[in-house]
Amino acid sequence: MRIDIISVLPELMESPFKTSILKRAVDKGVVEVHFHQLRDWAINKHRQIDDEPYGGGAGMVMMVEPLDKCISELKSQRDYDEVIYLTPDGITLNQKIANTLSIKNNLIFLCGHYKGIDQRVRDLHITKEISIGDYVLTGGELAACVLADSVIRLIPGVLNDEQSALTDSFQDDLLSPPIYTRPENYKGLGIPKVLLSGNFALIEEWRHDEAIRITKEKRPDLL
Amino acid sequence: MRIDIISVLPELMESPFKTSILKRAVDKGVVEVHFHQLRDWAINKHRQIDDEPYGGGAGMVMMVEPLDKCISELKSQRDYDEVIYLTPDGITLNQKIANTLSIKNNLIFLCGHYKGIDQRVRDLHITKEISIGDYVLTGGELAACVLADSVIRLIPGVLNDEQSALTDSFQDDLLSPPIYTRPENYKGLGIPKVLLSGNFALIEEWRHDEAIRITKEKRPDLL
Repeated sequence: MRIDIISVLPELMESPFKTSILKRAVDKGVVEVHFHQLRDWAINKHRQIDDEPYGGGAGMVMMVEPLDKCISELKSQRDYDEVIYLTPDGITLNQKIANTLSIKNNLIFLCGHYKGIDQRVRDLHITKEISIGDYVLTGGELAACVLADSVIRLIPGVLNDEQSALTDSFQDDLLSPPIYTRPENYKGLGIPKVLLSGNFALIEEWRHDEAIRITKEKRPDLL
Repeated sequence: MRIDIISVLPELMESPFKTSILKRAVDKGVVEVHFHQLRDWAINKHRQIDDEPYGGGAGMVMMVEPLDKCISELKSQRDYDEVIYLTPDGITLNQKIANTLSIKNNLIFLCGHYKGIDQRVRDLHITKEISIGDYVLTGGELAACVLADSVIRLIPGVLNDEQSALTDSFQDDLLSPPIYTRPENYKGLGIPKVLLSGNFALIEEWRHDEAIRITKEKRPDLL
């Protein structure tokens, strides 16, 4: 998979991609991530990429021209499966969308900033608008990191133990059951005895029941 | 505001806090962020902080003892408004939760990793469990960055133009209307004429109508 990330603040995304699973995926050659500083396609020597909104109001708007040039150049080099704009206005990211994107080859992530992008960029290029949740962030950079992480970890060969991704929360629309590790007793707090039974069928049944109980309690909307 | 972030991978969060709004908030002294490497509270010289789950299964579990020691030490130094565990099992972050947290003084963010934390840590210390969305990430570190960004930008004095945060998506449960900036005509694509009218009442009305239209179309659940 190749991901091209367009941003005015690519340096914000440095450490997440240099650490942990994302680093491992890059090192293994499973994924290539390319950052593009939008100001390299600025319209003038001041490296301007934003301007005031037509009609007035607070905040700046990312201009159509630099974005059009940058995306057009990338598209001239290869076919992209999706040109994704990270924005609170988009469809809300969920595990199913992450699964779908994890089998694509070439993706562009466009990080919004300021009040967002000129509507004409959306009309010209954007094939999918994704929000990571119903809250506002300073920019799309953290959203791009979150989307990349949720997608890349699903690519076979990235996680050490594929089983581990398959038993995560949401893969079966249930939250995870409680988990425990050593010691058996900590400051008087024990663990459910079934987990020590050695009876794996019983343990699986308990975990499933607990997953349903917790999902009912915390997130009945998932059931 | 003071935020203490507990993690096995604090280095993952370096660049987001050294860039943009989060950096500005720290530089201005509006917020203090302290990272704590959980392995400093490990139970042995191998710096172990995780172990296999009781009852078997894939993935490692973060042990109760290092977390209890770390959180207890922090709590002995000051009062915390919330000890927040970032986990896909938590309540889903939204703008209202971000608003509520933005007026707190002391917060702990605990980043889960691997399969999660021993249930007894939740029972002992966690006052709030927050998920940034219905998808699984490699760890809670990006979730902690997202939560921090969504909260810190709401603290007065952090954004240049407070108006800018108040007119964001979700502050009034509506998505944003389309926005445009120069040029007026780009490759044959124009802009809505009302935005050039100079009639601000008319422009506000158009924006409100568009916000409702877009919210109806993309996110009817918000209305």
